[in-house]
Amino acid sequence: MGTVARDTRSVTAKVLAMLEAFTPATPQLTLSELARRAGISLPTAHRRAAELVEWGALERGADGRYRIGLRLWEVASLAPRGLRLRDVAMPFLEDLYEVTHENVQLAVREGLELVFVERIAGRRAVPVLTRVGGRFALHATGVGLVLLAHAPAEVQERALAAPLQAYTAKTVTEPDRLREVLAAVRRNGYAVSDGQVTLDALSVAAPIRGPGDEVIAAVSLVVRADTAAPITLAPLVQAAARGISRSLAPGRDR
Amino acid sequence: MGTVARDTRSVTAKVLAMLEAFTPATPQLTLSELARRAGISLPTAHRRAAELVEWGALERGADGRYRIGLRLWEVASLAPRGLRLRDVAMPFLEDLYEVTHENVQLAVREGLELVFVERIAGRRAVPVLTRVGGRFALHATGVGLVLLAHAPAEVQERALAAPLQAYTAKTVTEPDRLREVLAAVRRNGYAVSDGQVTLDALSVAAPIRGPGDEVIAAVSLVVRADTAAPITLAPLVQAAARGISRSLAPGRDR
Repeated sequence: MGTVARDTRSVTAKVLAMLEAFTPATPQLTLSELARRAGISLPTAHRRAAELVEWGALERGADGRYRIGLRLWEVASLAPRGLRLRDVAMPFLEDLYEVTHENVQLAVREGLELVFVERIAGRRAVPVLTRVGGRFALHATGVGLVLLAHAPAEVQERALAAPLQAYTAKTVTEPDRLREVLAAVRRNGYAVSDGQVTLDALSVAAPIRGPGDEVIAAVSLVVRADTAAPITLAPLVQAAARGISRSLAPGRDR
Repeated sequence: MGTVARDTRSVTAKVLAMLEAFTPATPQLTLSELARRAGISLPTAHRRAAELVEWGALERGADGRYRIGLRLWEVASLAPRGLRLRDVAMPFLEDLYEVTHENVQLAVREGLELVFVERIAGRRAVPVLTRVGGRFALHATGVGLVLLAHAPAEVQERALAAPLQAYTAKTVTEPDRLREVLAAVRRNGYAVSDGQVTLDALSVAAPIRGPGDEVIAAVSLVVRADTAAPITLAPLVQAAARGISRSLAPGRDR
């Protein structure tokens, strides 16, 4: 980024730009990296970073580099779709893990992507590409197909209009075919992604509903494709999803 | 809070004040509550909240109230002492849970308090007072005693000089007695909190060390006090703590 001739962003926007300079690939930044990524001058970055460190939104390592601070994580843990959902879901995710020893995932939709809110990784289970707080496309994974199938029509159209990446030869990237898959997800009450992210993994996902009956999250089991029988996994995942939905809306009998 | 005659805080400080207006007890706020708690005018709060919502640091519910947004949680998930520690620790915490089916906790120190970074709650285990992202005093819990025992001398003196709350009749609140407890924690390599938070719970905690061998976190098992034998739990918790320490510093043989 070169010199910004006229920066019309508000101070709030610039502070947020400093926070979003940190990414999974670059979780620690020097002051000059931070200034460059946020598009602000070095003296301004220096002054603001000091304020952010004082509050605890950023921390400074022994090497002088900046990283996200624990205080920001504490405040952010109040996000209802983050840790609150996770706290309610956790006992059900643990049960799924205990009876299968496979990968268990919990995700919500954010725009045209999903965000993993929780993940219990089976130590001897099939490797998966996910990270808590990480993002992924909607059209390939089991949780993504559930979230897309129940997204508003306008979101579905935008997702189908965008280029759909083929992660494997099995990824469904043809819009009309994907529309059929989504209809089946709504009809069946669960989604199956068989080798559509990595060829050796199969996931079965089910929708979690909020108090207003809208789908707010999805839970999945990810197992080795060659050992999997979706038909036996689906009731297990659906039961967990219903349990979580019920816990999110106490007093409602679903 | 009345009218602020002259507010010398920077915009950055005011934005952060808006974020910290949200607490575990008040995770959702109306605009006027938000303005009052952050100590800013209603029009300013309105404008800044709109910017924070646009970026995703805040979200607005159907009832118009504001809450912390998923985007802030995503960025905050990059905090090295938050989810990064948790991701490394999780397989070991799962193992502890699987072999005991008791409560498993992971905590770090922040000033004179501890923050719970992870918690696996046994469904039939003894109830515990913790929440992920929540805080607690250092002098009562097992993880707290480990973190205090290994804190810098200056932190220990400040903690011992402050009033020490008695959660039960068993909580150690006498500074000289607490000093002996902390010395024993360092000598034994683990801490035992027997009925010091709630009378029915006993916790055994061990230190997790960072790459520089400094204690950066603590892990504990919390079990029912009447069924517990600390001497049998300690090696289990210590082994998990060592496994996590080793994973945090690949290549080091501890």
